[in-house]
Amino acid sequence: MIIQFEKNITSTQRERVLEILSKNAFKTREAVTQLSNYLVAIGKSDFDIRIIGNMEGVNDVHKVNDDYKLVSSKWKVKPTQIEIDADVTIGSNGFTVMAGPCSIENENQIEKMVEFLKTNNINIMRGGVFKPRSSPYSFRGVGIDGLKIFYKICKANGIKIITEVMELEQIDDMYDYIDIFQVGARNSQNFNLLDALGKVDKPVMIKRGLSGTIDELLYSAEYVFSGGNEKILLCERGIRTYEKAYRNTFDINAIPILKEKSHLPVIIDPSHGTGQRSLIEPITLAGIMAGADGAIIEIHEQPEKAMSDGQQSLNFNETQSLLKKIRETSNFKNQFLS
Amino acid sequence: MIIQFEKNITSTQRERVLEILSKNAFKTREAVTQLSNYLVAIGKSDFDIRIIGNMEGVNDVHKVNDDYKLVSSKWKVKPTQIEIDADVTIGSNGFTVMAGPCSIENENQIEKMVEFLKTNNINIMRGGVFKPRSSPYSFRGVGIDGLKIFYKICKANGIKIITEVMELEQIDDMYDYIDIFQVGARNSQNFNLLDALGKVDKPVMIKRGLSGTIDELLYSAEYVFSGGNEKILLCERGIRTYEKAYRNTFDINAIPILKEKSHLPVIIDPSHGTGQRSLIEPITLAGIMAGADGAIIEIHEQPEKAMSDGQQSLNFNETQSLLKKIRETSNFKNQFLS
Amino acid sequence: MIIQFEKNITSTQRERVLEILSKNAFKTREAVTQLSNYLVAIGKSDFDIRIIGNMEGVNDVHKVNDDYKLVSSKWKVKPTQIEIDADVTIGSNGFTVMAGPCSIENENQIEKMVEFLKTNNINIMRGGVFKPRSSPYSFRGVGIDGLKIFYKICKANGIKIITEVMELEQIDDMYDYIDIFQVGARNSQNFNLLDALGKVDKPVMIKRGLSGTIDELLYSAEYVFSGGNEKILLCERGIRTYEKAYRNTFDINAIPILKEKSHLPVIIDPSHGTGQRSLIEPITLAGIMAGADGAIIEIHEQPEKAMSDGQQSLNFNETQSLLKKIRETSNFKNQFLS
Amino acid sequence: MIIQFEKNITSTQRERVLEILSKNAFKTREAVTQLSNYLVAIGKSDFDIRIIGNMEGVNDVHKVNDDYKLVSSKWKVKPTQIEIDADVTIGSNGFTVMAGPCSIENENQIEKMVEFLKTNNINIMRGGVFKPRSSPYSFRGVGIDGLKIFYKICKANGIKIITEVMELEQIDDMYDYIDIFQVGARNSQNFNLLDALGKVDKPVMIKRGLSGTIDELLYSAEYVFSGGNEKILLCERGIRTYEKAYRNTFDINAIPILKEKSHLPVIIDPSHGTGQRSLIEPITLAGIMAGADGAIIEIHEQPEKAMSDGQQSLNFNETQSLLKKIRETSNFKNQFLS
Repeated sequence: MIIQFEKNITSTQRERVLEILSKNAFKTREAVTQLSNYLVAIGKSDFDIRIIGNMEGVNDVHKVNDDYKLVSSKWKVKPTQIEIDADVTIGSNGFTVMAGPCSIENENQIEKMVEFLKTNNINIMRGGVFKPRSSPYSFRGVGIDGLKIFYKICKANGIKIITEVMELEQIDDMYDYIDIFQVGARNSQNFNLLDALGKVDKPVMIKRGLSGTIDELLYSAEYVFSGGNEKILLCERGIRTYEKAYRNTFDINAIPILKEKSHLPVIIDPSHGTGQRSLIEPITLAGIMAGADGAIIEIHEQPEKAMSDGQQSLNFNETQSLLKKIRETSNFKNQFLS
Repeated sequence: MIIQFEKNITSTQRERVLEILSKNAFKTREAVTQLSNYLVAIGKSDFDIRIIGNMEGVNDVHKVNDDYKLVSSKWKVKPTQIEIDADVTIGSNGFTVMAGPCSIENENQIEKMVEFLKTNNINIMRGGVFKPRSSPYSFRGVGIDGLKIFYKICKANGIKIITEVMELEQIDDMYDYIDIFQVGARNSQNFNLLDALGKVDKPVMIKRGLSGTIDELLYSAEYVFSGGNEKILLCERGIRTYEKAYRNTFDINAIPILKEKSHLPVIIDPSHGTGQRSLIEPITLAGIMAGADGAIIEIHEQPEKAMSDGQQSLNFNETQSLLKKIRETSNFKNQFLS
Repeated sequence: MIIQFEKNITSTQRERVLEILSKNAFKTREAVTQLSNYLVAIGKSDFDIRIIGNMEGVNDVHKVNDDYKLVSSKWKVKPTQIEIDADVTIGSNGFTVMAGPCSIENENQIEKMVEFLKTNNINIMRGGVFKPRSSPYSFRGVGIDGLKIFYKICKANGIKIITEVMELEQIDDMYDYIDIFQVGARNSQNFNLLDALGKVDKPVMIKRGLSGTIDELLYSAEYVFSGGNEKILLCERGIRTYEKAYRNTFDINAIPILKEKSHLPVIIDPSHGTGQRSLIEPITLAGIMAGADGAIIEIHEQPEKAMSDGQQSLNFNETQSLLKKIRETSNFKNQFLS
Repeated sequence: MIIQFEKNITSTQRERVLEILSKNAFKTREAVTQLSNYLVAIGKSDFDIRIIGNMEGVNDVHKVNDDYKLVSSKWKVKPTQIEIDADVTIGSNGFTVMAGPCSIENENQIEKMVEFLKTNNINIMRGGVFKPRSSPYSFRGVGIDGLKIFYKICKANGIKIITEVMELEQIDDMYDYIDIFQVGARNSQNFNLLDALGKVDKPVMIKRGLSGTIDELLYSAEYVFSGGNEKILLCERGIRTYEKAYRNTFDINAIPILKEKSHLPVIIDPSHGTGQRSLIEPITLAGIMAGADGAIIEIHEQPEKAMSDGQQSLNFNETQSLLKKIRETSNFKNQFLS
């Protein structure tokens, strides 16, 4: 059960609600987010929620049978839109493209990329500054100083930044220089990090784990939401299977299932979801038809010289061609299929 | 290396070619198909194929580095079209829909389905008469007698039949009553069956194994082609993974990869690829954008009463709605994206 | 429910039983095996089986809640022993080793192998004559003529033969020349083949599918048993997973689970279950401790020259060393751990 | 290449080595651990390492072709033993058992468990105080205060503690109260945590990820070692596959492969590796035969009342029976099979 308190609920009113729930053996957790003051109550399913609904200080009550609650579509049927900015909203009818290199490398690279994005009407740039790498000897990113340069250039050009946070201690350092925190696949169940991102007022994009289930992704989102932050994007980025013909198996089924189960926007990552340049276009267009709200795509001025993930990065020409097709397909979907 | 002999090659000319290959330690296998007389030669990769190309009786020679040969796009760049009939071709620019129940149940069911298909311009009906079932106690299909009734009704209405053959002994019995032989996922590496289907002049649709790799599917097709039958359809029907939110993981990546690697048409099976009615529409439309040439879809007049697979079958209204979207999406793709 | 009829049940008695079951909406299937005359009845679980148990002509009745029936340990608690021969029994307290090459190659190879096996007290030889191969261009076995030579040499030396049958048409041809039919992983759900092996009075070893579930293996065994043949060995041979450090993931958990769920003996195949010579010893010894009844192991006089699977075959020295450890471990287990 | 410096290497000597490596385009990383001062140099494979080996200040040089270096058995052939304490060493010929509840619940539970462990000669107790849980609403552990009580009781009874650290900020708080840091499966690639544990002088046990590869586990260990801490235990705890008959697929192949590839001890977790009480005994004994150095086992005075993982916990009687078999099997292995 999810209870939404009124903004001006008195502490006496609140205590009365908690008392009734306690008497009925409910476990409760409060979540004060940007939008509302929720109380998640977990317990017996045959409880008459009208008892709570009629109490003073209570704005609304919803029964949610799913194991995750606040991220479930059972209580919030309308899809959620995430405002990155006055101009940039994810999860409306359009299809949002975030693009940029796997790794931020240097100032010159950022400038050329920002120029390219502006020319092509993309207003969110991706780019890793902290890189999770299997081997300790691989390039691990330019770090916080690189992020500051990245931010300066983007800010000057009206471009928003999405980048990965690997560790809760980095949150404060990064906060002023990013617009969307990304939680990587390897940190998808780093629960302390998710808890900490629940305390932050910036959007968080959570990638599904390497072999994460759809339910685990929703639970990870529930950590952030119940921690106090409802600005969440879910990201399908391919799963690990036995097939070796490509890097990961892009789980297209996950898109309509996530949209059914949750009200949160779904972003696809065709770069990691395939690991192969030639597959990015067909999988992105497929993802649009399957219901995705946006894509995060690795692009590079010279993929063959990229410090990481070159084999799955598009060059500028390929990106422009893809963007044109994305827009046509997204328009087609909105006009003819809704 | 693939050598195409001229139709009127003399036995002396043929022997000379084989002699040269033998001297150069090539292993050879001849494949006489509906269209041509091929010689597949496997051996050293630095052989100068012009030596063969210039010989009498040889029409063409192609170098193919892939482990599969005849099904590879390395020698046949243009996509293959499979003629089911003078009117029905799969693999052209359109998108072919084959639809029908999981299992053929009775005459009445067939008649209503055929009526529905005709009204909706679908000219290939699916329907299992031999059903592979995990348990020996499950319904195992109406068998050859059911097939004859199925055929009679379809024939009278100009509808083609695709149905599964489980065993090579069934091929002869079924031959006169079907238009496309389907090899099921569990028989995807039943090599004796594949060998036998190479001897037949009817199209064969091969489903990918439950956990079959993309290469294994192509090898299975190579069995049929090298056996003498080039009328082959490849079918992606979802793979087995750890995820339990649906029945199978539809491998959308497989579509563009199969189209890159092979010249054969790719059919998708969104019914088994998802196992869930609500996913069939988004996955089918996604499949079109990813490059599929057609879909085989389970539909039933009353899915809730189906003898098998009801939970993944569309009813007639849902089917009509989907067909409309399939046609719009296929048109859009052909007009705006090519 | 499993009903065991008395040997001399009259047809009237039989009909009375069927009538009662029919009235109570049970679906029935009779299985006349080497040992007994079973009637499997599937239907409502709250039926009082004593009604049947008290009828004339009925020897015994058992309630079995599992979806598979005759292979379940629910009705036959004591492990089944399979007699290959007066001297050779599988599934008793010992641990049976079957060994030999992946493929039968020639007479000389068979003779040396038989000599080696005799010297080392192994009395079942494996060796493929029909080889299931992904590619149609790979070596596909010496066929039935090779089998006859294989048999002649083994027969003369008191060695039993286990070899793979790929196709139901081969059963009759092979019958006189083999002692155990092996169903390969790729044919694990070739239901027509399983049905046909149910009609045969020779033991059948069924390998688990490439990505077969434990339940699917038991269902495949149920096909053979319900078809009339209770001489069945279950074989764990590794499953397909994402891990690439070896060929297959040997599923050691499957051994105790199969022993819990079924009364049939469990054979392990450490050669395919690992794909790597150095892993065969540790995995075989582990398998003994986990409860396996035997192992089928690929060995070759000169693995580096084997026509197939050389990288996972032991040479004669390695085999002797392993056999010594197998015997010690099996003895240890029987003496100290039971 | 791994270079071991002499303890008293001068800074001039060190610089000369670095200079030569730099001239030859090697990337280097120094690792000062409890035992030695290593320099890992990554670069061209045809470099003559004797050039370095002959330099002053250099104790030894090893060529290591694996992508991981310090954890590889290529340079350190003899298995590493980890001293937990003067009395307790892991990785010697014996087999170390660590046991205890999934979650620490209260003082009384700890006391009874400690008593039981002492009586049964187990000197390392497991018990989670920070619990990684998919759902934010599940019990998440008694935290640092619980750990202090846990420690007090264990300390008084000579029992060592292994418990999970979820977040690098917890390391300092936990340091005085634990003997082995455990990195959980979900944190197996939390690289910041691994980096931080490299700075600590206490043993670290790293669990393989939910779908982690064997190489990824070795890379994670390389993070800790190259960070400065060589006291590392590798833990196989089952992987995620399609099979639903149990919780995880225990990867028995991983044991001999890890022992081949690395010099570090391998611990098995049969509790998570199976998820089922009845499988713990067979899998543990199998693990001993496959080469494991120890096991971490979930036990509980009353499994049916455990706050987590009761279905996979042994009670005290079952534990005693298992311990007896573990000791016999370990002795057997050491005496008869080495």
